[in-house]
Amino acid sequence: MNHATPDVVSVDPRTGEAVEVVGAESTPAEVAARCAAADSAVPALAALGVAGRAALLRDMAAELEKDGETILALADRESALGLPRLTGELARTCAQLRFLADVVTEGSHLGVVIDHPDPAAVPPRPDLRRMTVPRGPVAVFGASNFPLAFSVPGGDTASALAAGCPVVVKAHPAHPATSLATYGALRRAAVLAGVPDAVSLVHGRAAGVALVTDQHIAAVAFTGSVRGGRALFDLAAARPEPIPFFGELGSVNPLVVTPTAAAERGASIAEGLLGSFTLGMGQFCTKPGLAFVPAGEHGTALQEALAARGTDAPAGTLLTRNILAAYAEGVRELAAQPGIRVLAGAEPRDLAGRATPTVLWVPGAMFSEALTEECFGPVTVLVEYATEEELLALLDRLPGSLTATLHMGEGEEDLPRRVIDVVTRRTGRVVCDGYPTGVAVSWAMNHSGPYPAATDSAHTSVGAAAVQRFLRPIAYQDTPQRLLPPELRDDNPLGVPRRVDGVLAGTAISPTG
Amino acid sequence: MNHATPDVVSVDPRTGEAVEVVGAESTPAEVAARCAAADSAVPALAALGVAGRAALLRDMAAELEKDGETILALADRESALGLPRLTGELARTCAQLRFLADVVTEGSHLGVVIDHPDPAAVPPRPDLRRMTVPRGPVAVFGASNFPLAFSVPGGDTASALAAGCPVVVKAHPAHPATSLATYGALRRAAVLAGVPDAVSLVHGRAAGVALVTDQHIAAVAFTGSVRGGRALFDLAAARPEPIPFFGELGSVNPLVVTPTAAAERGASIAEGLLGSFTLGMGQFCTKPGLAFVPAGEHGTALQEALAARGTDAPAGTLLTRNILAAYAEGVRELAAQPGIRVLAGAEPRDLAGRATPTVLWVPGAMFSEALTEECFGPVTVLVEYATEEELLALLDRLPGSLTATLHMGEGEEDLPRRVIDVVTRRTGRVVCDGYPTGVAVSWAMNHSGPYPAATDSAHTSVGAAAVQRFLRPIAYQDTPQRLLPPELRDDNPLGVPRRVDGVLAGTAISPTG
Repeated sequence: MNHATPDVVSVDPRTGEAVEVVGAESTPAEVAARCAAADSAVPALAALGVAGRAALLRDMAAELEKDGETILALADRESALGLPRLTGELARTCAQLRFLADVVTEGSHLGVVIDHPDPAAVPPRPDLRRMTVPRGPVAVFGASNFPLAFSVPGGDTASALAAGCPVVVKAHPAHPATSLATYGALRRAAVLAGVPDAVSLVHGRAAGVALVTDQHIAAVAFTGSVRGGRALFDLAAARPEPIPFFGELGSVNPLVVTPTAAAERGASIAEGLLGSFTLGMGQFCTKPGLAFVPAGEHGTALQEALAARGTDAPAGTLLTRNILAAYAEGVRELAAQPGIRVLAGAEPRDLAGRATPTVLWVPGAMFSEALTEECFGPVTVLVEYATEEELLALLDRLPGSLTATLHMGEGEEDLPRRVIDVVTRRTGRVVCDGYPTGVAVSWAMNHSGPYPAATDSAHTSVGAAAVQRFLRPIAYQDTPQRLLPPELRDDNPLGVPRRVDGVLAGTAISPTG
Repeated sequence: MNHATPDVVSVDPRTGEAVEVVGAESTPAEVAARCAAADSAVPALAALGVAGRAALLRDMAAELEKDGETILALADRESALGLPRLTGELARTCAQLRFLADVVTEGSHLGVVIDHPDPAAVPPRPDLRRMTVPRGPVAVFGASNFPLAFSVPGGDTASALAAGCPVVVKAHPAHPATSLATYGALRRAAVLAGVPDAVSLVHGRAAGVALVTDQHIAAVAFTGSVRGGRALFDLAAARPEPIPFFGELGSVNPLVVTPTAAAERGASIAEGLLGSFTLGMGQFCTKPGLAFVPAGEHGTALQEALAARGTDAPAGTLLTRNILAAYAEGVRELAAQPGIRVLAGAEPRDLAGRATPTVLWVPGAMFSEALTEECFGPVTVLVEYATEEELLALLDRLPGSLTATLHMGEGEEDLPRRVIDVVTRRTGRVVCDGYPTGVAVSWAMNHSGPYPAATDSAHTSVGAAAVQRFLRPIAYQDTPQRLLPPELRDDNPLGVPRRVDGVLAGTAISPTG
């Protein structure tokens, strides 16, 4: 019997046409082989040391840049995101690889802690030295909306490799050719570094399932929908040996405009909000999908300005035809909720197969849970509140989100403080007087939030702390200097930051008994 | 219809008799009310600030000490662990509360990171300030084997409160009176601090299930069996909004004796190993359940010494009659495995209802997976290896464990290094030339390990890092100084350690723009 392996096809979303066959979906045997190879690469990646892994990440960035023209053309053809945005995304992707190289070079991610013996302690304390080690091979799922920065060469891959974990990426079906091209660049760097199996690529939905359940996979990183992500999360949790599933699923990203802010700069907020919810045709996980605006003269002016601007906003191509269909369906469902008025937008999908930006409106009294579900695409819902108490009560009903944004008046203090208190329990990032779209890659960034924003709000997928997802601690007790990893030796040959006997110390300590 | 609530009965394991009715099992409504109260206590506990919470922890220790005599008498009656051990455990429990007060006072657990704006970054960087906040109410499951240090006033409760999370403890049925007495001491301190709902107590198996599935509970901490823990883990993962389940389940804790170590001090290792696997009648999660000993003259001498000492080791009362029955059954199953010989011990349960220490032996060639399952109680299995390669291959087949112990010769390097390389991937703590029973409470301690030792090996239940389980990060973007938590303000009024623009900094930075 011949079970033909399905083709992996690259589709142009602008035309809806298949452009080329990129390859075949990975078979279960192929997935198992890639996972076993990744497992075998763990010691080699460890042997590179932090310096070697930092060099690998920098080489990967350089290889991506070498192929930049090809990669950008493919990414644009497969995503319709446009060259300016994708050029920025490639720069961000390479900067992210280099930033994570810097992060692991600095060494704090190792969390080195040294306790000298203390026989007087209760209970008595032996010599204890703690640091982090890689968890093992990581499965990474590419995201539809960032064909570079959250896909094959994206933050999950970069932070897993930085942590010392080999990676098997499941390519997103919306951009298989881009995935293959970027994988090629990463693999060249890996081969040069002598760890060819540090990165692998698999294709197909079945391959994703096989990946999450493979015995060699120690953790999963995922960016995508609540439905798809939760199904994989459930698989990871149900394994005989459960593994952590770091999923960024869905977020409605509330934005609040205080009455004072509306009075002071309503028109500018209307312009900024339009720019934010239509940026990349609303296909950002941080898109503000709910905006709480005040009733009254200034609030109404803001709403009218947004209605006018929204009506003029151009239609655009979404990432895939499936996403377009889901957008159209989602907008229709939102518009059908009780109390909803359409301020801007007519048919969510135009005759040319593009998405039309939509602004909806509902009075706070008619607000319902159905409006808190993320609708991917250029739509936002304005929720009009009459009083501060109504606003705070509405915010208190929101699910977890990646971001919560607050526009306030000059020097305003009381209401902003109350808003921040409420949203802090529900979000991973509070943005003041700005817009949540745009996620900096830095030491302080947090890109997570209570469920469904993230499957575990303790872990960010962007920024320096993203590395922590792929590490686990180990302590060495009464272990002779000759057998300790260099990071834990008294002479600290690698110069990593450490805590010694409870005190954050410099990089060298005097040898002990 | 009258559904009578089952009694909670305190049983004396030395006699098997019920001594008193401590109360009634908690009803679903009672559990829900305790969880809601815990949720309402989140702001009050936050308002105490780090200093207030540190004071609360210290007051809890003092209140426990005030009631020490009563608590110790109850704990001994309910556990049969003996007053000397329990006196030490109470001291450890109080020291742990005070240590965690010190840890949060130091402030590194807040993970404060400040990035100033950098418009030239790719992508541009706004002002970003990150710190950790409490997850919310935590469900804690008391453990059978530590009625104090891993139960109501134990490490999970202490680290959750230190993190700012109210706690609802599910009392272990083996020591309900001890649970109630220790809860009383904790509650006095909580009432004095003005946060009476910071700690609650519930009883009964159904209450445990209700706790893990209650909407207000944000995380679970559990120490216990693989079967019970996994069932609760599955419930936590299957919630509409999954919550992290920090479970310490089961561990076989391998111990390796190199041929050189056996030659140099086989008799002393035999004595030490006997002491370790029979300590507390083998009812430690870190009990060495497998010992890899070399073939040949010195290995045989070590085995014979252990057989002789094991035969003389006294029988003792286990924590409960159920645990005794499970021990007897577990020993019989181990002894029935192919190739097993009984070196010491006859009937695992004597006529007085006590457990008899048991030493089993198997040649490496007959080693099987059935021998890697934890058997709670005073039994260890000696695995005789013929060659270094056989030893390493055997270690490579072990499941995750809390500890792995290595006894080596003076200055020995090659084999120890290879052993450490293999066990590092499978354990959370490597112990050299010592014994794994005895878990220091310190900055560097790690008490976790790959599954089934822990449900997530990234998190320890003992030591300073235990606090991290109950925290999640949040970032504030472009937030005015007046609205920032004090920890994130430029003037750092609380003097917490911070990273500023990527550099671990002192405690104050100059104000910006």
